[in-house]
Amino acid sequence: MHILIANLGSTSFKYRLYQMNGQDECVLASGGFERVTDYAEVIQQALAELVDQGHLKSIEDIDAVGFKTVLGKNLSGCVDADEKVIAALDGFREVAPAHNPPYAAGIKLFQELLPQSRLVALFETAFYQWIPESASRYAVPQSWYDAGIRRYGFHGASHKFVAERSAELMGREDVAEVVRNLYQDGPRTLSGKPLRVISFHLGGSSSVTGIRNGVAVGTSMGFSPQSGLPQNNRVGDLDSGAIPFAIKTLGISMEEAEQTLTKKSGLLGVSGVSNDLRDIRQAAAGGNPDAQLALDQLIHSARQWAASYLFDLGGLDALVFTAGIGENNAWLREAICADLEDFGVEIDVDKNNACQAQEAIISSDQSKVKIIVIPANEELVLAREVTRKIS
Amino acid sequence: MHILIANLGSTSFKYRLYQMNGQDECVLASGGFERVTDYAEVIQQALAELVDQGHLKSIEDIDAVGFKTVLGKNLSGCVDADEKVIAALDGFREVAPAHNPPYAAGIKLFQELLPQSRLVALFETAFYQWIPESASRYAVPQSWYDAGIRRYGFHGASHKFVAERSAELMGREDVAEVVRNLYQDGPRTLSGKPLRVISFHLGGSSSVTGIRNGVAVGTSMGFSPQSGLPQNNRVGDLDSGAIPFAIKTLGISMEEAEQTLTKKSGLLGVSGVSNDLRDIRQAAAGGNPDAQLALDQLIHSARQWAASYLFDLGGLDALVFTAGIGENNAWLREAICADLEDFGVEIDVDKNNACQAQEAIISSDQSKVKIIVIPANEELVLAREVTRKIS
Repeated sequence: MHILIANLGSTSFKYRLYQMNGQDECVLASGGFERVTDYAEVIQQALAELVDQGHLKSIEDIDAVGFKTVLGKNLSGCVDADEKVIAALDGFREVAPAHNPPYAAGIKLFQELLPQSRLVALFETAFYQWIPESASRYAVPQSWYDAGIRRYGFHGASHKFVAERSAELMGREDVAEVVRNLYQDGPRTLSGKPLRVISFHLGGSSSVTGIRNGVAVGTSMGFSPQSGLPQNNRVGDLDSGAIPFAIKTLGISMEEAEQTLTKKSGLLGVSGVSNDLRDIRQAAAGGNPDAQLALDQLIHSARQWAASYLFDLGGLDALVFTAGIGENNAWLREAICADLEDFGVEIDVDKNNACQAQEAIISSDQSKVKIIVIPANEELVLAREVTRKIS
Repeated sequence: MHILIANLGSTSFKYRLYQMNGQDECVLASGGFERVTDYAEVIQQALAELVDQGHLKSIEDIDAVGFKTVLGKNLSGCVDADEKVIAALDGFREVAPAHNPPYAAGIKLFQELLPQSRLVALFETAFYQWIPESASRYAVPQSWYDAGIRRYGFHGASHKFVAERSAELMGREDVAEVVRNLYQDGPRTLSGKPLRVISFHLGGSSSVTGIRNGVAVGTSMGFSPQSGLPQNNRVGDLDSGAIPFAIKTLGISMEEAEQTLTKKSGLLGVSGVSNDLRDIRQAAAGGNPDAQLALDQLIHSARQWAASYLFDLGGLDALVFTAGIGENNAWLREAICADLEDFGVEIDVDKNNACQAQEAIISSDQSKVKIIVIPANEELVLAREVTRKIS
C-alpha cells in the first residue's frame, strides 16, 4: 500500500512516500520545496518525480494521501479529507493562521490531482476527543463556547504514539490494541489494572498529556498552541486578565500584544537570549540568570502539568519523553524526574545519559514507575493512521 | 490591645473592633454602612459611635487599624499602611478596580483621623512572597514582567490561617510557629518530616494552594483573581489566545470581552442559571445539564489544581477545606476527595455529612491523609496579623 504524507507549510511543501505492508513499513522517497508560491506546480512536480524515479508506476498507485491538520471547527479525528474538512479548517483560520490555509488549499489541489486516491486528514486534536467535558470546557458563556472556545489539545499524533508504544514496552498488549484502534472504534473499557502514563512531548512546541488505558484524560495545551508549557517563543499559560492590562499600561495594540505572546515570549522572552534551548543552556552555564530562569521555568511547568493529572489517572506507571528536546537532553529529563522517589520515580543516571534520541528505558531496575524515551516519528505515525483508516 | 479592622468596598464601609490580649481575642463591636458617598463622614461616625457606646474611652485607644488590601505594585507583606502602600495600590488600580481605590482613599482618611494609631496593611498576596520565581513568573518578555505581570495569588490571609491551624491540628507546633512568625521572620528550615498541606478556599471566589512546612509553594490564582478555578462569575483559567479570537469572531470590543470574563463567566456563565452554587445545584438536581457541567467543572478544576502541587510538595499529609462553599457543602468535599484512596485519602462520609461550617477532621481513622474543615474568620486572622506586626 502506498501512502503519501503531504506536509504543507505557509511557504513550503514537503512529502514522504511510504510503502506500508503490515510490519513492513518503508520510506520509498521523500523531498520538499521551500519558498513556494505556486503549490499546484510543486505538487505536480513532486508527483511526476515519484513516477520518473521509479517509485511508482503511475500516480494512480498512491492509495492515500495523509495530511496532519492542526485543528478544525467542530471537527476532529482521523477522517476523509473532504469538503467538511476544508470548511472546518477555514472556520478556524484565525486560530491556526500558519497551518489551516495551506492545508485547506493543499487538500483542494490533491482532490483535483489525485481523484482516485483516498485523502485522509489526521487532526492534531484527535487524541483528545474523549477528554470529559468537565476538563475540556473553559468557564466561558455559551456564546464563547459556540464560537469554538474550548480546550482542544495538540501534538495528538505524537502523544498517541507514546500511548501505543509505551503500552507495548510495558507488556500491555491489551492497551496497545485499544490505542491502535482508537480512531476507528473509540475507547474500550479494559479489565485489569489500569495503565497510567504521563507523556512529555518536549520540542520547539511542548505539551504534557495524561493517558489512562491508552486514552488521554487531559493535556496542557488548550484552545491554541500558546497555552500550557512555555514554548520556544510562545507564552504558555498566562492569566487572561494580563492582556487588557498590558494593552492599557504598555500602550500597545491588541495586535502588538498578540505578536508579543506568539513570537516574543516563552523561552525566548524570558531568557532574552534565544528560542533555542541549546543557546539558552549555554548562556545559563555562562552565568546568565534570565537564561537559567527560562530553564527552571520549563522544568517547573513540565512537572506541575504532569502532577496535575495524578488524581485523574489514579496513580502512575510510566513517564515518557519524546520529541526533539525530550529525546536529546538527558539533563532535562533528569531535572524533570528529580526528587520523585516518593512517587516511585527513580531515574538511572547512567542509562539516561547514554540515551540520545533512541528508544530506551532509563529508570532504575527497582523504580516502580518506568521512565521511557520514545523517539517521535510523526510522518510514520501519520502513515500508520492513514493505513488503518483506509484498510 | 484594641485593633480596628476596616473593610472598604467600592460603596461600603464595614468595621470590627477587637480586643486582643494573648489568647483572649474578642469582638467588642462591629457595624457598617452601605451606599457610601462620603467615606470621611461614615468613618468619623463609626469612630464616634465606638466611644459613645462605651467600647473605647477615646478614639486614641485604638492601637492599630488593619486593612486587608488586595495587591500592590512592587509591594506585598504585612506592612505599615503608609505612603508606599498608597502608591502601590494606586499603581495597580487597573488590576483591582473595585478594591484598590477605596483602600487607598480609606488609608489616607485614617491617617488624618487617627494620627496616633498604627495603620497596617495585610496584602492578600503576602502569603505567596516565597514562591520560587520559576513558579511565579509567566513566560512573558521583560517589559511585561516589569509592568507587573506575574503570578501573585490571592486569599493569602485565609490560606495562611489554614497553614497555621492545620499544623496545630496535626500536632506540628514547629510548623505552626513558622506560620505565625512568617511575616516577621520569613520562612524557616525545619528538620524532621515535612508537613504537606493542600488548602481549598472555596467561596464566591476560590483558590487552591499547596503549602509545605507552612510556606506556600504555589497557588491557583495568578496575576488577577480571574484565573485558576472557575469563580462565581469570573472565568478562571483561559487560554490567552481566546481573547483576540473572541474579539474578532464575536465582533465585540476589548471592554466587552473583559466584562464577559469578569462578570458573566465562571459558574454563572457555564450554568446559565446563577452565580450562587445553591441555585446551580438545585437546577442540576432538576436535570439541567449545563448546571451539572458547572458543578463537574468546579470539582475537576479543584482536583487538578490540587494534584498539580504534589511533585512540589513531595507528598501529601492533609487536605483542608475553608470559606463559605468549602465549609458548608459536604457533597462538594466528598466529590473532590472521591477515588483518591490510592493517594491515602479516605473521607468518612458520616463525619463529613455532620460537619457544617465548623472545625472538624472528616477523614476516616485509617486515612493516611487527614481531611480537615477549618472555618475562615478573615477579620480575626487580620486582627491577629496586625497584633503580631505591632507587638
